[in-house]
Amino acid sequence: MKRVLLVVAYDGTGYSGYQAQPNGVPTIEGELNSAILELTGEEVEVIGGSRTDAGVHAMQNVAVFDTASRIPAEKFSYALNLRLPAAIRIQKSVQVDSDFHPRHQNCVKTYEYRIYSAPFPSPLKDRYSYYTYRKFDIARMQAGGDLLVGEHDFTSFSSIYSQAKSPVRTITALEVLQRDGEIVIRVSGTGFLYNMVRIIAGTLMEVGEGRRAPESITEVLNAKDRRAAGPTAPAQGLTLVRYLFQDHPDLT
Amino acid sequence: MKRVLLVVAYDGTGYSGYQAQPNGVPTIEGELNSAILELTGEEVEVIGGSRTDAGVHAMQNVAVFDTASRIPAEKFSYALNLRLPAAIRIQKSVQVDSDFHPRHQNCVKTYEYRIYSAPFPSPLKDRYSYYTYRKFDIARMQAGGDLLVGEHDFTSFSSIYSQAKSPVRTITALEVLQRDGEIVIRVSGTGFLYNMVRIIAGTLMEVGEGRRAPESITEVLNAKDRRAAGPTAPAQGLTLVRYLFQDHPDLT
Repeated sequence: MKRVLLVVAYDGTGYSGYQAQPNGVPTIEGELNSAILELTGEEVEVIGGSRTDAGVHAMQNVAVFDTASRIPAEKFSYALNLRLPAAIRIQKSVQVDSDFHPRHQNCVKTYEYRIYSAPFPSPLKDRYSYYTYRKFDIARMQAGGDLLVGEHDFTSFSSIYSQAKSPVRTITALEVLQRDGEIVIRVSGTGFLYNMVRIIAGTLMEVGEGRRAPESITEVLNAKDRRAAGPTAPAQGLTLVRYLFQDHPDLT
Repeated sequence: MKRVLLVVAYDGTGYSGYQAQPNGVPTIEGELNSAILELTGEEVEVIGGSRTDAGVHAMQNVAVFDTASRIPAEKFSYALNLRLPAAIRIQKSVQVDSDFHPRHQNCVKTYEYRIYSAPFPSPLKDRYSYYTYRKFDIARMQAGGDLLVGEHDFTSFSSIYSQAKSPVRTITALEVLQRDGEIVIRVSGTGFLYNMVRIIAGTLMEVGEGRRAPESITEVLNAKDRRAAGPTAPAQGLTLVRYLFQDHPDLT
């Protein structure tokens, strides 16, 4: 037996999230399990990395599985890509230690939330960005976002359906930048609560619009109450762009 | 009666090109004609700008039509967007002179051909880029592209099915740049022959791969023979990004 790590990119449009679900709804993990079964004949349940929501995209998410197959670990990328839908593509496959668990590793995940603000939607952007005609002051968004960096209790920025044991998380970097006609909120952290990046995006948009002061972000954190923050921004604007294992930076 | 100019963005995936066709195949102009009919009750045939091929995208293409409707020209954008498929969005609508014809104006069109070169395809890029595992030297591509700038007989870079009266066209700028992990061939000119940008892209990729010398581009031009150039690069990598009327730069 060997354990294989997959680095997975996907267009989340039309998928009910990353994590496999029992009722046959399409998920990224479900598609990976099917492709592995088709290739090796083995019924596996991959162990996934970040459990992205329905409609969220990834340039780098991860999954591991154990196999008795004699296919070299490095060849799984090619062989699985032939069996996966076009919306999912393995970027890399590599053997890891038999006890390697992606969610028990020290890691830094980087998400980008893309906002397209213009008088009219653009068909070339709306698959991977949130469109709005509202206008934003990026410097205000950055000033608000700066207050989120560091270790905080992020209860206010978490779905009330979060099942996390602790609401304390660490954001290591948050940048608000302009790229290719869009506003991008790029946020890195060692872990995120359920809906956390989308609630950060929804709240910073209110800051950028002038409906909230940048300084109010500290009050939102202190409130430890979901109702203190802004709305959850729509899923299609969110992409997991980097999944870095700090002790194994070469894996991804 | 008034003449209205539409600035149109579209995702060309699944469309049989811009120009309306008689046999009911889906085209961008056909969708515009249908939306105008639904809105005004008038059967019109819009006069289009650049006749992009099947599968080619646009951030800015143009069309004009005449209407007796009392709807203000500026409001057509909003009203037509409610009636168009999500893949097509009017960016602007404005009244123009009754003899304004988009193809009889001095204009500069800018196309971008996007190439994603990586070991594996990315589901987040393959809608608007051409994927290949081949590797390219961008400086070589730029050196070859430099030889295309100016007024030339572009017979070698034109489909043999071109019906243009003259094969002479002027390229005003050609840049090969890297953006967001992709190679972008950005080419501006006062007019283009059928398939011209896609053949330029296919030829410059051969230059970038080392299969042709940059200087050979001059020989290709001089040959005035389609067979002297490289292959026609796939449509989905091509986007019309700017349609500038030189005498009316504020229109688009």
